Amino acid sequence: MITSLQNSTIKNIVKLYKSSRERREQQLFVIEGARELSLALQSNYIISSVYVCRDMFSKSKYLDVLNSLSENIIFDISPSVFEKIAYRENSDGIVALAKPKQHGLDDLKISANPFIIILESVEKPGNLGAVLRTADAAAVDAVIICDNQTDLYNPNVIRSGVGGLFTLQTTICSSQEALEWLNTNNINVYAAELNGAKPYHTVDYTTPSAIVMGTEAEGLTSYWINNAKERIKIPMRGMIDSLNVSVSTAVITFEAMRQRGF
Amino acid sequence: MITSLQNSTIKNIVKLYKSSRERREQQLFVIEGARELSLALQSNYIISSVYVCRDMFSKSKYLDVLNSLSENIIFDISPSVFEKIAYRENSDGIVALAKPKQHGLDDLKISANPFIIILESVEKPGNLGAVLRTADAAAVDAVIICDNQTDLYNPNVIRSGVGGLFTLQTTICSSQEALEWLNTNNINVYAAELNGAKPYHTVDYTTPSAIVMGTEAEGLTSYWINNAKERIKIPMRGMIDSLNVSVSTAVITFEAMRQRGF
Repeated sequence: MITSLQNSTIKNIVKLYKSSRERREQQLFVIEGARELSLALQSNYIISSVYVCRDMFSKSKYLDVLNSLSENIIFDISPSVFEKIAYRENSDGIVALAKPKQHGLDDLKISANPFIIILESVEKPGNLGAVLRTADAAAVDAVIICDNQTDLYNPNVIRSGVGGLFTLQTTICSSQEALEWLNTNNINVYAAELNGAKPYHTVDYTTPSAIVMGTEAEGLTSYWINNAKERIKIPMRGMIDSLNVSVSTAVITFEAMRQRGF
Repeated sequence: MITSLQNSTIKNIVKLYKSSRERREQQLFVIEGARELSLALQSNYIISSVYVCRDMFSKSKYLDVLNSLSENIIFDISPSVFEKIAYRENSDGIVALAKPKQHGLDDLKISANPFIIILESVEKPGNLGAVLRTADAAAVDAVIICDNQTDLYNPNVIRSGVGGLFTLQTTICSSQEALEWLNTNNINVYAAELNGAKPYHTVDYTTPSAIVMGTEAEGLTSYWINNAKERIKIPMRGMIDSLNVSVSTAVITFEAMRQRGF
């Protein structure tokens, strides 16, 4: 059992939590929580090691998550060591290191009538995670993030996404690349903005469709507004002039699913 | 100008941020941010004092927020003092103390065809704030929280809500009191749960309606499930079995608004 806070492996896990550069260089990221680890395994992520605080893990709802893992990559750790590498509240005693996947546009496999969510850029990893969780629930084909600064494997993406990062197809590319890909695949582009011409629910999403969402602070750039088939808006009837991006994405996405008969 | 971190007023603001007991005993709470202060003023909250770091505030989008306030309740503070009492990222140099309002069921003023959001209980103040922000955008009649442990004036409610707490009618009461009030006002009750019988969009919300939302972890209690007119669900098509409560509330609420022609 690892009991020392000075253990080099433990210190490295803390580094991988904090530093996107370390994650990139080591080609490793941290998964906390048995549910998230379970979803990563189901999605064929390669797990390199797992650290388990048995006292805490014994109360987990996902006890069988360890069954499919080789015993020689599972390491017991003490409660104080777990506390050092745990990042979330109400954690269930398990932390794993996994290898990132490649996320190229060319790797996307889409259905015959796809629905795609495009995020032009992302202010906070927590917001991206929240969008991924919604996207999983709605079973969209893919989430495309047009912002090369984004690190999908930021721990807040995984935490807020409850594992949606693993279950969904997610790609990072430039806006130009995304638009070209959408055009090649004959997917209609709907740009969401506060000054959009049409209420979001007056648009037909039953054919191949993508919605493009901007940041809360800045909205969409003119690139997407000018290249969209329609500009759509969620009617804002209160005194606050915006919605959280994960909420506005959910409202439009579930309207599309309603139109599609789900 | 207040420059000392040891100033008793400054120390008291920190206490009011941290302690719901202090907020209750002093009948004061903290508003950070010029936008939030502006919404509180528009909603006739009584502001007892305002602390301004002029360097930061000069870049605010809401410079006119101080115009309607008496000069003798405005105090200049130094950047280091502001840093001590600032709670948020990207703050715009203003913190105010305000008096809580009463939030009784009997104080609610509802329209002829109300739409009400009921939260059976609230896991995190940030989730409550996110629901309030959505509720403002959809212009619902009221948000009723059936959980006497909730402190509406927790700083995370105000921060996530972007001021929705001020613009909306919000009440805290027991589930029994809420149901009695709904029945007295002839408002149909729709209970949202994962095992709900009907997809949320197959229900008619064009007459007086209330949706009841539970916690992510526990869902609704049998009290609401048994007393609802219908049990509704959002179809979950992915691998994750739940949505964030602010997202599910938004999806159902905006479907109701769509049906109502907004």
